[in-house]
Amino acid sequence: MSDALVYVAQNEIYRFVYQALIAAGVREEVAELTAKGLWSTSLRGVDSHGVRLLVHYVHELRGGVVNPNPNFVWQQTAASTGTLDADHSFGHASGMIAMRHAIELAQEAGTGFVSVRNSTHCGAMAYFGLEAAAHDMIGLAFTHATPKVQSPGATQPFFGTNPICVAAPMQNEAPFSFDSAISQFSFNKVHQYREDGLPLPENIASDENGQMTTDAHAAFQLLPIGIYKGFGMAMMVDMFSGLLSGMPTGDDVSSMFDGNFSHRRFIGHFFGAFKISAFIDVDDFKQQLQMNADKIRKQARLDENIPVMVPGDPQKITEAQRRKDGIPVKPFDIERFQTLASELGIEPLNTSYN
Amino acid sequence: MSDALVYVAQNEIYRFVYQALIAAGVREEVAELTAKGLWSTSLRGVDSHGVRLLVHYVHELRGGVVNPNPNFVWQQTAASTGTLDADHSFGHASGMIAMRHAIELAQEAGTGFVSVRNSTHCGAMAYFGLEAAAHDMIGLAFTHATPKVQSPGATQPFFGTNPICVAAPMQNEAPFSFDSAISQFSFNKVHQYREDGLPLPENIASDENGQMTTDAHAAFQLLPIGIYKGFGMAMMVDMFSGLLSGMPTGDDVSSMFDGNFSHRRFIGHFFGAFKISAFIDVDDFKQQLQMNADKIRKQARLDENIPVMVPGDPQKITEAQRRKDGIPVKPFDIERFQTLASELGIEPLNTSYN
Repeated sequence: MSDALVYVAQNEIYRFVYQALIAAGVREEVAELTAKGLWSTSLRGVDSHGVRLLVHYVHELRGGVVNPNPNFVWQQTAASTGTLDADHSFGHASGMIAMRHAIELAQEAGTGFVSVRNSTHCGAMAYFGLEAAAHDMIGLAFTHATPKVQSPGATQPFFGTNPICVAAPMQNEAPFSFDSAISQFSFNKVHQYREDGLPLPENIASDENGQMTTDAHAAFQLLPIGIYKGFGMAMMVDMFSGLLSGMPTGDDVSSMFDGNFSHRRFIGHFFGAFKISAFIDVDDFKQQLQMNADKIRKQARLDENIPVMVPGDPQKITEAQRRKDGIPVKPFDIERFQTLASELGIEPLNTSYN
Repeated sequence: MSDALVYVAQNEIYRFVYQALIAAGVREEVAELTAKGLWSTSLRGVDSHGVRLLVHYVHELRGGVVNPNPNFVWQQTAASTGTLDADHSFGHASGMIAMRHAIELAQEAGTGFVSVRNSTHCGAMAYFGLEAAAHDMIGLAFTHATPKVQSPGATQPFFGTNPICVAAPMQNEAPFSFDSAISQFSFNKVHQYREDGLPLPENIASDENGQMTTDAHAAFQLLPIGIYKGFGMAMMVDMFSGLLSGMPTGDDVSSMFDGNFSHRRFIGHFFGAFKISAFIDVDDFKQQLQMNADKIRKQARLDENIPVMVPGDPQKITEAQRRKDGIPVKPFDIERFQTLASELGIEPLNTSYN
């Protein structure tokens, strides 16, 4: 089989993921929100958190990590706050439902914040942040993750790559979004370097004893950005995601990839929405954010051939391309998808786009 | 004059700063909140943002940067939100007043957020975050700052070192606090390296053309932690601090140290308080945060002689020392303080502590 990427029409990707989840027993609303999360993440080029995870998620459904028919329990606790028990649903669905509650709270109270408990992996956080931005709000999204980030001065990890996401509407283009783990590198990238037989950049990973390494195979944990600074941010995200939700925190957060598909994960998330008009005219805000982005893009370049970009720009560029050219999928994943299609009795993925 | 640090009793430092501000014409409440900010910051060992700034602040009062008798205008805009016009007060005072409003909002609405406009330099953000923690809330504090951080791929800065602060109560000790600029280094540290004739560490600063440098004298701008990651965080902080308050943003933020003491600064801040009990039992939260901190401190060490610390630990250790031994002040600053005392007609700083 060739190594060339296969381009699949973006709506065909959505169709396939949605039908696979339905065929695997997932309730309609949950399947829709989860498929939208995976599809939109791939569309934006964040492939590590996109549709390639589908097969993993189906394993999680079969093993009992994820509940296909969750009983979401929403409880408003004050004018701007509430909690959502996700009943072990897909994190994409529980996260989106939580963010929608946050937006609803913010419409009345100016801001809204929702703590989610008993959830699972929720994919890329921008999916949720952008939902708030679409409602003229600043969106905030946190989740904790598998412990993989070395504590400064220690030999071992304590926190995960605990991402921070913020999104906000702009005047003339799709919303601003910043969605970033607090490590310089992701473990998915380490896996890629392993496959490609390449050495890692310096100062991004360490081995089992906490010694810096550029050997991708020896890499056991990741370094936080700014060392103790990124570590502090990881602790902040864990506090909002884990401590406020009452889930296991720090190095007690369960692992996503330990090969055990039978245990619940007990992941916590935290979502927030700030209604911009509670602070300032929303058109002024959008205009000024647009002006800042435009000014940044026009800053004098270090290298004439490399544009200065605003966070989210690479994703916007990729989305425009992929809407036109389709979403590239690795042959390895195509194969796994077609096996899954036959197992689940759904139409195979149509790969005849180009 | 010897170069040896002079240890001054911590309460004498407070007395001196407070009386100097009063003698310079600052209204009592504003002087108290500002003096407390400077004093507590020095007490915690964050000397760059502590009492050494007093002389600079008096220059700002005399020149008209800072209004000694501000008319604060508070407006609640929704159940969880409000705005404060600081009328060019000291940022320490406007920030603390804003945070107290945020706490009050959060008591009722679960969370509270206050956007501050027409403010000035507000010192170290932990001062505000810790106020929320003292009320069993998670405190959040943002401010934008003088543009000094190189945009990735550009030759010039756009954003400032825009700090992020979060604080939260713990079970058996003073609150957790994380207070960090989004650059690895501060410009105050660059100044120290210049004075000491030392080369800078690698990859923390660049020259006027955006080229990396370890020459402290050539250093013109700072690199963000994690490059585009810290840059995104700077943009987030500027969004909350500047865009929501309607103040100049990005590279239009005024400079603190341009030697011009006659212009207003038009700085914006953003403060938030999350009532922990709106999400989870507050004792459970404190206990779990304590357990995590204790576990982190007990992690296996890379170097047996260097403890693994939680954000805020160095400040807690320093505060305990300084409450006992006094606050160390440079002879250069003692000299400036005594000149100021005679100009303002107040008791000179009593340096006979030891």
